[in-house]
Order: sequence, then C-alpha cells, then structure tokens
Amino acid sequence: MNDHLIPRTESAYSYPLLIKNLLQAPLVAAPDQEIVYRDSLRYTYRTLGERICRLANVLTSLGVKAGDTVAVMDWDSHRYLECFFAVPMIGAVLHTINVRLSPEQILYTIDHAEDDVLLVNSEFVPLLEQIKGRLDTVRTFVLLTDDRKPVAGSIPFAGEYEELLAAAPTSFDFPDFDENTRATTFYSTGTTGLPKGVYFSHRQLVLHTFATVAALATPLTHGRFHRQDVYMPITPMFHVHAWGLPYVATMLGVKQVYPGRYVPEQLLELIARERVTFSHCVPTILHMLLKSPASATVDLAGWKVIIGGASMSRTLCLEALQRGIDLFTGYGMSETCPILTLAHLTPEMLARPAAEQAEIRCKTGIPLPLVHLRLVDEQFRDVPRDGQSTGELVVRAPWLTQGYLKDHKASAKLWEGGWLHTSDVANIDPHGYAKITDRTKDVIKVAGEWLSSLELEDLLVHHPAVAEVAVIGQPDEKWGERPLALVVTKPDQQPPVTEKQLLHHVREYAEKGLISKQVVLLRLRFVAAIDKTSVGKTNKVALREKYL
Amino acid sequence: MNDHLIPRTESAYSYPLLIKNLLQAPLVAAPDQEIVYRDSLRYTYRTLGERICRLANVLTSLGVKAGDTVAVMDWDSHRYLECFFAVPMIGAVLHTINVRLSPEQILYTIDHAEDDVLLVNSEFVPLLEQIKGRLDTVRTFVLLTDDRKPVAGSIPFAGEYEELLAAAPTSFDFPDFDENTRATTFYSTGTTGLPKGVYFSHRQLVLHTFATVAALATPLTHGRFHRQDVYMPITPMFHVHAWGLPYVATMLGVKQVYPGRYVPEQLLELIARERVTFSHCVPTILHMLLKSPASATVDLAGWKVIIGGASMSRTLCLEALQRGIDLFTGYGMSETCPILTLAHLTPEMLARPAAEQAEIRCKTGIPLPLVHLRLVDEQFRDVPRDGQSTGELVVRAPWLTQGYLKDHKASAKLWEGGWLHTSDVANIDPHGYAKITDRTKDVIKVAGEWLSSLELEDLLVHHPAVAEVAVIGQPDEKWGERPLALVVTKPDQQPPVTEKQLLHHVREYAEKGLISKQVVLLRLRFVAAIDKTSVGKTNKVALREKYL
Repeated sequence: MNDHLIPRTESAYSYPLLIKNLLQAPLVAAPDQEIVYRDSLRYTYRTLGERICRLANVLTSLGVKAGDTVAVMDWDSHRYLECFFAVPMIGAVLHTINVRLSPEQILYTIDHAEDDVLLVNSEFVPLLEQIKGRLDTVRTFVLLTDDRKPVAGSIPFAGEYEELLAAAPTSFDFPDFDENTRATTFYSTGTTGLPKGVYFSHRQLVLHTFATVAALATPLTHGRFHRQDVYMPITPMFHVHAWGLPYVATMLGVKQVYPGRYVPEQLLELIARERVTFSHCVPTILHMLLKSPASATVDLAGWKVIIGGASMSRTLCLEALQRGIDLFTGYGMSETCPILTLAHLTPEMLARPAAEQAEIRCKTGIPLPLVHLRLVDEQFRDVPRDGQSTGELVVRAPWLTQGYLKDHKASAKLWEGGWLHTSDVANIDPHGYAKITDRTKDVIKVAGEWLSSLELEDLLVHHPAVAEVAVIGQPDEKWGERPLALVVTKPDQQPPVTEKQLLHHVREYAEKGLISKQVVLLRLRFVAAIDKTSVGKTNKVALREKYL
Repeated sequence: MNDHLIPRTESAYSYPLLIKNLLQAPLVAAPDQEIVYRDSLRYTYRTLGERICRLANVLTSLGVKAGDTVAVMDWDSHRYLECFFAVPMIGAVLHTINVRLSPEQILYTIDHAEDDVLLVNSEFVPLLEQIKGRLDTVRTFVLLTDDRKPVAGSIPFAGEYEELLAAAPTSFDFPDFDENTRATTFYSTGTTGLPKGVYFSHRQLVLHTFATVAALATPLTHGRFHRQDVYMPITPMFHVHAWGLPYVATMLGVKQVYPGRYVPEQLLELIARERVTFSHCVPTILHMLLKSPASATVDLAGWKVIIGGASMSRTLCLEALQRGIDLFTGYGMSETCPILTLAHLTPEMLARPAAEQAEIRCKTGIPLPLVHLRLVDEQFRDVPRDGQSTGELVVRAPWLTQGYLKDHKASAKLWEGGWLHTSDVANIDPHGYAKITDRTKDVIKVAGEWLSSLELEDLLVHHPAVAEVAVIGQPDEKWGERPLALVVTKPDQQPPVTEKQLLHHVREYAEKGLISKQVVLLRLRFVAAIDKTSVGKTNKVALREKYL
C-alpha cells in the first residue's frame, strides 16, 4: 500500500519522535519551575536544560558516540534525570543498572549490555572494586558524589560528575536520527535464570509518555496528574524508567523532587517540606511509610500514589484511604516500558463506601489509550469478560520491548503468536477492569482446575496472627498439585496461632463460597521468613527449591 | 545510524499509529457514554463502534478500496464523526468538503481531490445538481438525511445512509497498514488563488490527538478538558477536522453533542439541555451567541471555549468572562492539523483582574508539547522574545501537512528552509506567549518599517461608533505604503461620526506611545460592508482590488 502514503515535499521536515523533543514545551512554558534533590540541591528547568547540554558535552568529550552504551549506578537523583535525557539525546543507550542485584549479577548485566562508560555513585564504588578486574567492555568511569569528595580505591575515574559538568559548555546541538534508535536498556530481574535485557526506542518512550499523560491527566480529580502537582518517584529510576513518570513530569513542566536512597523518615520529610502531591511505589514502601513513627506528624491527605510492582492488600489500601491518600493500582512490567493499565475509579465508583472503593483500587485497572489488552485461554481464544473467568493477559501497545537482548529463544516465547505474553493470569469485569489473580507459573492446578495462589495468600494474610505468607503448588499423586502455604506469624502472639486455626479460617471462606472448595486441600508450614527477589517480590522459585 | 535501531523479534508486533487504535480505550472504558445529534438521535459509544463497522461494510460493498477518496458534504453530525473513523480505518482518504465554498470551487476541490464516492446531506443536493454533469471522478453517491425521506432530482444515489447502515453487519476486521498512509484531505480557503489541498496521515492525526490532550488536560482547572466534560464543536467538521477535537473527545470517552447546522438559538438550547461544558468556535459565533436574546436565560458559567480562526477582541473576551465563560485562544491553520498553541493562563495570571487576563486570553498562546515554534526575521535569524520585536512564526511539529496536494511550487514555498511558514507576524513575550500581530502579506510597510494592520484595526474598533473595520496598505510614492482604514459605522449614530473624530481617536493612542507614530499617515474611508471569505475572515485581497 506504499502508493497511498502521504507525499512529502523535499524540504518538508519529517519530525522524528525523539526524547529531545519532550523538552520543547517545558523549556518555553516553565523555565523557572524547580527540580529538587534531597536537601542538597535545587535548580530550575532552565538550568536542567543547560545541564543536559553540559552532560552531552562531557560524554562526547569522553569519546561517547552514537550507539555506545552509558551505564548508571545511582540512587534517584537530578543526575539520573539528566542522564534520562542527555544519554539518549546524543544517540547513545542508557543502561540503568539495578544496584540491588548481587555483584556477580551486576557484572553479568554490564558485560551483556556491553557498557562503554559507567557513571557510579561513590556508595557503590566498594561493590565495583569487587568486579573491576573483570569488566571487559567499560573503558571510562565517572564518579557521582553528593559532596564532591574524592573516593579511595583503584578505579581510574575520568572525573567527578559535577566538576566535569561545571567545566563544560551550556549548549549542544542535539542531532536528529531515526526514532527507532535504542534509547534505554535494563535487566528484568526474573525469578528464574539470568537477568534478561529489555530495550526501548526513542519512539517508544515518547509514545509511552503521551499515553500515560492521556490516562493520568484526564480523570476529573481522583488519581489525576496536572501541571501544579509536585512529583517525587519512590520507585527506583533504575527500575523501568521509574515507571516513565520522570519523562511525563518533565514534559509537563512539573516540580520534581528526587529523594536519593529511600529512607522512610527522609521521604516523609521531603513530602512535607516540598509539598509532594504525586508519587508511585510498591506496597512495601507505602506500608513502611505509614508505619514509620515520623508519619504521624505528616499530613498525607491529598497525596496521589500509584501502587504497582506487587498486588496491594485491601487492608493497606483502606489504611491509606483513612489517611486521605488517593491511591490506586498501576500495572505493567519491565517488558512493557512499563505502564499498561491504571485502576482509576469512575465518579460513580467514588461515591461508594471506602471498602468497595478499595476493591477497585486494588484491581489491575483499565488499559491506557492505544493499549490492546486481551484475556485468552490456552488455545488463544478470548475469555469472557465476566469478572470470573480467568485467562492469560496478552497485549499489544506501541511501547513494548521488541525482544530480550541477544536472547532469540526467550524473545520468540515472549512474542508467541504476535502478542506479548505477560504470564499474568487475570479476569476482566464487565466494566473493563482487569484483576490479576496469579502468575501463569504460580497458578496451582488442582484436579485440572486453576486455583489462585494470590487469592489464597490474600485470604491468609487477613488473619490477625499472620505477618506474611506465600503459597506454592506441591506435586501430589492424587490431585496433581495441592496448595502449600508458607506462613510467617506475627511475633509475640500469645498463645501462638495453630495450623488448625488457620485452616479453619480458610474453610470459613470456602463454605461461604468466597473461594474455591479446593482450598480444603491446603497444607500449612510455619517458616521464619519468606525468600525475596532483588526487587522485594516473593521468590517462588527459591521457595519451591527449599520446601518441595 | 541504522545499526543502532532496536532489534525486532520476528513475531513481535510492530504497532502502527492508526486512527482505529484511538478507539481501543473508550470502547473498553466508556461503552455506555453518549453521542447526541441535535434533538433527533442519541446513542452509546458501543453503538458508535458498531456503526463504524457498519459504515466500513457499506463503503467496501460500494467498491471503496484502500487509497480511494470518500468525500462528505454535511453539517456537524454523528454521521460525520463515523466518517472521521470508518473512512480512514479502511485505508481510504476522507475529503471533508467545505460546504461554504461556491459551487464552482466545490467542483474544483472534488475534481482536484479525485473523489470516488460522495456522501451528501439532502440540503446540498440542489447545489450538487448544478455541478453534477461535470463531476468526472465520482462514481457513487450516498444520500445523508435526518428524516430518511427521499429527495427529488436526478442524482443516482446508491442509497440513504441510515438505511444502508441498518442493512450492514456490525463487525469489520480493520486491517493494519503503514501509519504514513493518507487519512484526510481538505482545502485551505486562502484569500488568494484557487483552494489548496492539505493532507494528513494516520500517524499525524494520532500524534495531534495525544499532544492536544497533553496540553488541554493538564492545567489545574482553567481551560481544562477532562473525561466528565460534555463536548460540542462549533467549528465545522469540514474545517481542519473540527480542530481535531472529535478525535480527542472520542479517545477519552467523553460525551459528545453534534449540533448540525449552526443556529444560535439551537446551539444555546443544546448547551443548556445537554449541559455542554467544552467547545471551540470563531469569535463571530461567540458574539452571535452572546447577542442572541435566547442567551439571557442560558447559564453559560463554566463553559470552556477555545477561540480561534480569527483574533478575539478584548471587548468580546471581557463580555464572555462576565458571563462566566472560561475562554482562551487557540492557534493553528489548515496546514497544521491545526493546533499549534493555546493561550492557557498560569495560576498566577488567573489571580489578576479580568482586564489583564483578557490581554493574555487573547494572545496566540504557548506551544503544545512537541511543537517547535520559532520567530524569525527575513534573514531567518531568531528575533528576541521580548514581547515587542516581531518576526514570522515558523514551525516544526509531527502533524504538519507535508505539502499542498499536487502543487510543488506552493509546497516548496510553504516549507522553505525546512520550516513550515505560517505567514503570520508575531511577537513572543518572555513567558513564551506568542501574539500574532499580522499576516506577513497584511503588514503595511511605512518608510521601511512594519506597521500592524491588526493592531490598528483593534484600536479603531474600540471607538464606540465603529461596527467593523479593515486596514489595508495603500501604495504611496513618498512612504512606500500608507494605511487605509475601511470603516463600517454602527447604525443610528447621531450625529454620525466624522473622519476627523476617528483620526483624533487614533492619534491619542500614538501620542501616549501605545502605537507607532506612523499611524498619523492613516487615511479613512467609510464603507457599507467589509468583504469576507467563505469562512468569515476579512478578505483583504478582495478589499485591495476594490479600494486601491
């Protein structure tokens, strides 16, 4: 159909969707807006624009060319924000290193991504010293410090970030190039095997930014992001571009606060002092903030928070709602840039009591514009959207990784049949709200029927004596699989809760028809702790190895 | 730099930016939302989705193929909205015919666009009868009626729209194709020469939709478009896609009201009955609505209106503000899809008195995200952004026509130097707000210096005796040009205003330094009426021919 394409005048400018173009609007409309880093730095968007140019000059003078990879090991900072722009804007690839991985895994990702330059926060220099001799690709190191103090050790730093920037010119002529050029790379911390690299182009990041704005800015009030908000990420910038929100906030010229390493008391202080109104985090962080003694004196009413990365319990949701926090679920994964759905409530849903609202706020949500979400069975047939029937979520959107870096086999599996497989099992209700009930690999198949381990976990964690729980499938000759619950009890429970009491708790729900009868096959085991992955998710692979 | 593009897994879905994908979100999230046509029809988005499929089936059964052109002659209707989607979604081109052109001009555009199919409202059948014998390309006619009544005449209609749709299936498998495929075409009604065709691709319309949402949805309250709004266009759908807002409203699942032909009393009734909260129109229409006796009983407070197409006077703006209307300027043109800038006020500006706000609301505004606006002099050097210095606005954005259809010479001129030339003369203030002071061709060059005809018109129209005014440049041996004002006085002014009084009025401003001293060279001429173009703009070409 090429003959139906629009004709182009020779001199007409064919506009590519490049990250640099996200800066057009804010630098005109909001040059005096603020970017804040902890309690140590505060500058304007005008300065941000200049610093992005300075960083581009520093990197090119260090020999960075288009197609090279620049890796960063830092906590959430203004420096990271500058890298989000400057690195891809010169045509290089930004590798955001997950600093919570083990040194060996970090080495693996640096090697696999073929990083040329490494920008490293002084805090991570000791870690880097451990693997330094084995970094085959890195030819330049830049030191990131908050205090400009040199660090001891043997790494031959080309300089300290702030000093290099101070000496560089404040303008840079960013080139145009193909919008399908790779902009970012990072590693998905799966619970199985080696980390897998995902990657995103300029076009993908620009489109993710616009679709996220279209979803977040358009609700009447609840869960709404606007130009007068104050944004602070509490999901690391190394993790799926901090959900892409730094790009959104920058394009809208919104005040931004970067908190460094996450320390609950400091986060609360920043929220109060900078009047933070919009954030996103995993349930664990929210839980820590609410439990922190410092939170008692901080007014959190009106704070809008997207919760993602793990499912939120209704208990936590209700507790946050009582504090006046406007929280709702967002869903996505490393492979999806990440945002696919948001659990915004309609005005009619907002009129319902908190307990009913919590039910919806904890759902996975409705798709962003352009997101085509399907719920399919094992034969790839569409499953009814009745809020009951479950299937796997498969998706198409303009911002999904087009594969795993240098891993054809896993790439082909991810994109089997032309749809990205989320490996998440969900239902979709008649209002279009998806709800994840399990990971495909975490579903327990009892007598040929699916039993949701997440549902069972949610039910057990509601017992007052239970601190934490993980449910896995135990192979069983008769049933195929039987659910096994690994339970961490709360300390100081007198008398300690018994297996019998917990089984009774579960059966009550089954008798009321609130959960499948198959839960009567549940087995329990009290454990001291639940194994976690590097990003704090329950590590079911490790649990299976340990307990089965 | 092709080696730096993201690698694609063979089975990975490469997502094109097609108009069909704008429907993904609303059909999931807002299937029960309403579309209203005057007082005669009301249906849901679910039905809209089905009707788009029905129309696609009707068109393909009439032989429409990808690359064919389907033209529409209709007032603003649900049918037009369906054509906005169904026609491009089957790979065809939608030609939105300007029904205000003369029959000869309409014939010219149909011929030039090579229309294959023509959908025509029964009201325009008599017009069509006049040119019918000379329509060389059109092979199929479809009749659009509100009442399904057949019309007299000799045009061999293939059927009536509603009847054809009723007989067609409610599903259609819309194909994927290149996002640079042409989606729409229409003709720019310039004041010189023959109408010029502009054209837009699927990608351009999708990106215009997202950037418009990013600009319109993100202000705190003023001038904000959100999901609970009720949208009604009052800028014709044949004119630059009704500013692209029907695509925006549909993607967001917003209630939409289509008013048919614009009759002030009916528009006011729809605003009141359907609780319309968001519209866009030219100043003339707003003026008519406010002056209509029917408007006295309609509460217009909270109605958000983008004003564009012609510059808004401060008087009209203040009058509308007094009625509680939240109005602000939008800027663009046929060549730009159209929106480039919006004159949203910052919260700080909103705290100022109405008179000062009006000053900003009447400006051209700040650029949408991704829009790169430059103000340049005749040597293409950037002009200072001091709110005083003027230059031509030139622009780059992802949604600008890449030329004029089959007109290489005009295309090359439009895109001279790789920037789209707006031919608008403007200044930009230090806050980034552009303000158009003139069209390049309407600027009057007195003794080598530019004098703004618009500024002079604005000044004269403030005199209580003046109803309307147009200023043109009169060739002058000594000065190069001298301004000539063509003045229509208000009826029943006793005694009638004199030339001397008006010149005195103008000189007072010059003495206060509010306008260039060159205005002392002004000449005046009282006329009965000012010639207009088909879209109601002052026709300076006609005026020059007539009076010079």
